[in-house]
Amino acid sequence: MAKAHDPQFSKLVKKLINTQRPQVLKSLLETLNPVEISNILLQLKLRHQLAVLEMLDRETASEVLTNLQDSSSVLESIVEEMSPEQLSGFIGEMPGDDAADFVSMMEEDQADAILETLPPKERDTLTQLLQYDEESAGGLMTPFVVSILKDQTVGQAIREIQAYVKKQPQFQLFYTAYVVDEYRHLIGTVSVTELLLADKRTLIQNLMNPEVVAVDQDLDQEEVLRLAKEYDLVVVPVIDKHLRLIGRVTIDDLVDVMAEEYHEDIGHFAGTGDEEVSETSIIKTSRDRLPWLLIGLIGGFISALVMSTYENALINLPEVAFFIPLVAALGGSIGIQSSSIVVRGLATGAIQTSDLIVRLSKELRVGFLNGFICSMVLVGMTWYLSQNLSMALTSGTALLLVVCFAAFVGSTIPILMKRMNIDPALATGPFITTSNDIIGIAIYLAITFNFDMLSLIQ
Amino acid sequence: MAKAHDPQFSKLVKKLINTQRPQVLKSLLETLNPVEISNILLQLKLRHQLAVLEMLDRETASEVLTNLQDSSSVLESIVEEMSPEQLSGFIGEMPGDDAADFVSMMEEDQADAILETLPPKERDTLTQLLQYDEESAGGLMTPFVVSILKDQTVGQAIREIQAYVKKQPQFQLFYTAYVVDEYRHLIGTVSVTELLLADKRTLIQNLMNPEVVAVDQDLDQEEVLRLAKEYDLVVVPVIDKHLRLIGRVTIDDLVDVMAEEYHEDIGHFAGTGDEEVSETSIIKTSRDRLPWLLIGLIGGFISALVMSTYENALINLPEVAFFIPLVAALGGSIGIQSSSIVVRGLATGAIQTSDLIVRLSKELRVGFLNGFICSMVLVGMTWYLSQNLSMALTSGTALLLVVCFAAFVGSTIPILMKRMNIDPALATGPFITTSNDIIGIAIYLAITFNFDMLSLIQ
Repeated sequence: MAKAHDPQFSKLVKKLINTQRPQVLKSLLETLNPVEISNILLQLKLRHQLAVLEMLDRETASEVLTNLQDSSSVLESIVEEMSPEQLSGFIGEMPGDDAADFVSMMEEDQADAILETLPPKERDTLTQLLQYDEESAGGLMTPFVVSILKDQTVGQAIREIQAYVKKQPQFQLFYTAYVVDEYRHLIGTVSVTELLLADKRTLIQNLMNPEVVAVDQDLDQEEVLRLAKEYDLVVVPVIDKHLRLIGRVTIDDLVDVMAEEYHEDIGHFAGTGDEEVSETSIIKTSRDRLPWLLIGLIGGFISALVMSTYENALINLPEVAFFIPLVAALGGSIGIQSSSIVVRGLATGAIQTSDLIVRLSKELRVGFLNGFICSMVLVGMTWYLSQNLSMALTSGTALLLVVCFAAFVGSTIPILMKRMNIDPALATGPFITTSNDIIGIAIYLAITFNFDMLSLIQ
Repeated sequence: MAKAHDPQFSKLVKKLINTQRPQVLKSLLETLNPVEISNILLQLKLRHQLAVLEMLDRETASEVLTNLQDSSSVLESIVEEMSPEQLSGFIGEMPGDDAADFVSMMEEDQADAILETLPPKERDTLTQLLQYDEESAGGLMTPFVVSILKDQTVGQAIREIQAYVKKQPQFQLFYTAYVVDEYRHLIGTVSVTELLLADKRTLIQNLMNPEVVAVDQDLDQEEVLRLAKEYDLVVVPVIDKHLRLIGRVTIDDLVDVMAEEYHEDIGHFAGTGDEEVSETSIIKTSRDRLPWLLIGLIGGFISALVMSTYENALINLPEVAFFIPLVAALGGSIGIQSSSIVVRGLATGAIQTSDLIVRLSKELRVGFLNGFICSMVLVGMTWYLSQNLSMALTSGTALLLVVCFAAFVGSTIPILMKRMNIDPALATGPFITTSNDIIGIAIYLAITFNFDMLSLIQ
């Protein structure tokens, strides 16, 4: 296989466009498949992207555009440059769910203009699909779904499927045929493999698996993914409020949901928000990242205010200030450790919001154990630097308290957020680090300057 | 569907075991499917887990054990308690790839004991599979693969597949039949849907798609996943060094790879290492998390040493110390932002190790822009707190330098690590935060106490 990730390839394409050699470019593109062409486009400027798309036949171009949906900012700028007629030509080639995603990405005027140019039947299907929330099972599904009846024989069912497929504008692979009753209620499934291998006279009801796993049209895409993962499903049927079969969600879309979810979670962790790896605009990148930095800035300012109230004490005992970065870092780390495990558990369903006490007790015990070890090390370090045992013991105690507090915050906040229907993943990044920094520093200074552990022990 | 995540369910199971009511337990379990039973097991203690497994028929129990492979510590402790005969009974029911994963998880003695109890044919297949690296295409694949010849008709091919499937100990669904030549070289694919719908007299060569995407047996599982995602494949054929078809990797295993990879990356980010959400041992959790905390502790100690060299200066101008947490937090955040984008880009192939200069220049420009905005805010804050314009301007300049340095480190380190074949994801968590903390504090103090920006400007 050609390695189209190779930057040499995109340089060659650029050169062929700049030197106006369309025939050579065309022959080069013909050796590549749509996935490879999409990868090359990602490395080109808009002008060159459009020149390449001009060269492709309509079917290939529409596949290339579908592949670009993962890099929405690139796709948006391409689409802005195209006429409604061009776009509706591409849409005619796309499977229903991809076409709906494609249209929903556009400005409203552009989308309306395109819908008007489509043939009535396609327009109706698309309008229907556009009504679902993009992140629900309905928004993810394709309405192309093969259904058969339980009192048909395998032979009859195959003939019916053949007739149905012939009427479809685009042929799509499917892996499961759905058995429905006369009201289109979903009552069972038969895999295509079973249909292929069965005797043609077998009745569908003797072949079908009546244990159906289906999802409601409004179910959130992450729940659909969780179900598919749990039951190892390659395709999930979608039903409406009357339990009628209306479509199916295929695994390739669920893999995209998984990648998206992953991207979102890491974006929260790292404070990069929705930024895409392929984003090239400096301004847009800065804008995506700045809010998370401002949280840190405000937190830092509050920490400075807290420290300024201990100004005189710090001048007398500057060694205390030396360990503030350490206290902040450890409090932050332990908070992130606890919260990240809880957030992941909540996402997979392994942790329930009702598990608050169980989880809190576990995280506190782990926090205490690790905090104790770290505190002992800190006592040694402080003693070494300050030659002041009393101060060293006091700092150690303060650190232990900070760490336990961080474990408490890290494990309870995500659960409470989930209970209040706020995305708990927000509690994994700069937000929780910053609040732990402030409160950690406040606890550390308050203990260190108000207690004397050595005299308390003695 | 029953919601087996509900903790009430596992409480009921526990109660039925403790009060010795096996009949009721058995009837309860019969209403549940293997996925639901696995979810319940995850919430039980070992003794109860074993009691539940005892109740199940061999087929269900082996499916339950397969589902538990995602929570390896739970599965390991269960397996330790079972006899080789019991285990080999379960293995006989599992698909090849799951059986191999299952055996490779055991201690060597236990694995050998089990292999000996298996029938020779099964043992050979399993021994073969166990030779592949667990994280390679070979380690992931099932050797059950349906192959047909290009000069067969569809009817002949179906009869051959029927005969092949009959000989298999376990029937597994498949979605694609592979077309091979007389040496088992892979030359094309036909989807099961196409076989089902085609005229029985069509020749396979007129139906097949000759554009095959296949992977080498030794290819890393993450590469297999990337390929499958790129080409929207539900199943990826695996070939040996002689290009002969030897197996297939199915999408459900790839979804697990994706979840694993995600888990690993978040573990690096959050400093929780390999810890599983379902881990209940406090000691084991502490051990997984402690190394990351020690990095922070050592970093904090070095920061303290750096600060102690400025002891006198800090006593004279304590306001400088107040902003150290802010400087450390911002340096850390910007470093994490840059490195997380680079690490993700390297993982998806959107960023190449040869892109060092391009990426560095982008991250530096973004860092400078955001650093400039944050520095302006810091100048205002410091001026307000210290009433000292000169010091405020100097701190702002220092912060800008710290931030640019952090962007530099965050974007170059992962690329250099990748070039040296070290997992770049290690550069996203405590490691990079800690080094940015130390160097950030050093730069900030060096600038603030050695330069006077106001006089430099004037």
